[in-house]
Amino acid sequence: MSKPRGPRDRMVFSAAQLIRRHGVAATGMRDVVAHAEAPRGSLQHYFPGGKDQLMAEAARWGGRYAANRVDRFVAALPDPTPGGLFAAMAAQWREDFRANGYDAGCPVAASVADCATGNPTVRRAASDAFAGWSAAVAAALRAMHVPYRRAEALAILMISTLEGAILMARADRDPRALDVAVQELRPLLDGATP
Amino acid sequence: MSKPRGPRDRMVFSAAQLIRRHGVAATGMRDVVAHAEAPRGSLQHYFPGGKDQLMAEAARWGGRYAANRVDRFVAALPDPTPGGLFAAMAAQWREDFRANGYDAGCPVAASVADCATGNPTVRRAASDAFAGWSAAVAAALRAMHVPYRRAEALAILMISTLEGAILMARADRDPRALDVAVQELRPLLDGATP
Repeated sequence: MSKPRGPRDRMVFSAAQLIRRHGVAATGMRDVVAHAEAPRGSLQHYFPGGKDQLMAEAARWGGRYAANRVDRFVAALPDPTPGGLFAAMAAQWREDFRANGYDAGCPVAASVADCATGNPTVRRAASDAFAGWSAAVAAALRAMHVPYRRAEALAILMISTLEGAILMARADRDPRALDVAVQELRPLLDGATP
Repeated sequence: MSKPRGPRDRMVFSAAQLIRRHGVAATGMRDVVAHAEAPRGSLQHYFPGGKDQLMAEAARWGGRYAANRVDRFVAALPDPTPGGLFAAMAAQWREDFRANGYDAGCPVAASVADCATGNPTVRRAASDAFAGWSAAVAAALRAMHVPYRRAEALAILMISTLEGAILMARADRDPRALDVAVQELRPLLDGATP
């Protein structure tokens, strides 16, 4: 997850990184500009919709990032199975926590947690981010011959469980909830292929 | 979930209700006093540890509330099964969303989401809240003859999945993620009893 080059992309990336730690409410526009090392005036230029637009784009960025990883995870599996894909999704978080500590969670989750109230722009972006991520997981499951509608349901289950386990792992500063999710869901997920 | 009587309990309850909507960072002490209709000076009196203490107690309140519901859910089931308990846990949220809209999430999740960074008091309280809630679920599963260690793992899975589905439902303003979780986890959960 290296910092992108252009100032606009850098600000979206920085917003995502900051809300992962502090939530939407506590992330100020000045913090984003400073984190992105962007010129102050560029905010108004690139984000005429202000903070709501920037936070919504951060949520969408998080969804695209997660969706893009799905194909890479599958490609890296010697024998792709639904349970193996879920293990890879959880392993990315385990590795992030190991390397960087437990301070930062999922930017999509962050964009719902403290601003589902009265911020329809950000809330809708979070919904779209979850939908895009779910669609990528469901497509991968279908390529493993999981039946069409079941793939959609299992994708939603995988993302729900992963999001909750990320929260519990951060609370505990321990990856156990992730490990439990991988172990317990594996037979269910692998049993969905013919 | 009626408002408690004493000013101290009212403030903890109000803090929990406010962080469910706005997160920890955006919930001010004055908001809590106003929501609790408590005398201003009582904050310092009851919570000498300030906002961190109050927010930590709100997280613990959320964990106790969730843990206490477990026995009630089981008692209301004609034929208690692990899948039936999980369905009841999800149904409470479905009903809360239906009755009150999607603005408020879980206070325990809220106490992790935006303040795992640099707020060890609240973070530890959230961890304890998850632990107490998991212990209550695990005890209920054991009473249904789920093997000892498996009960612990399944309790963590149930809470992870529920927390993530709550987030997705709030993003979508639609209970579908909860329904999917109940349907997909049922065979796994019920298969854990002899």
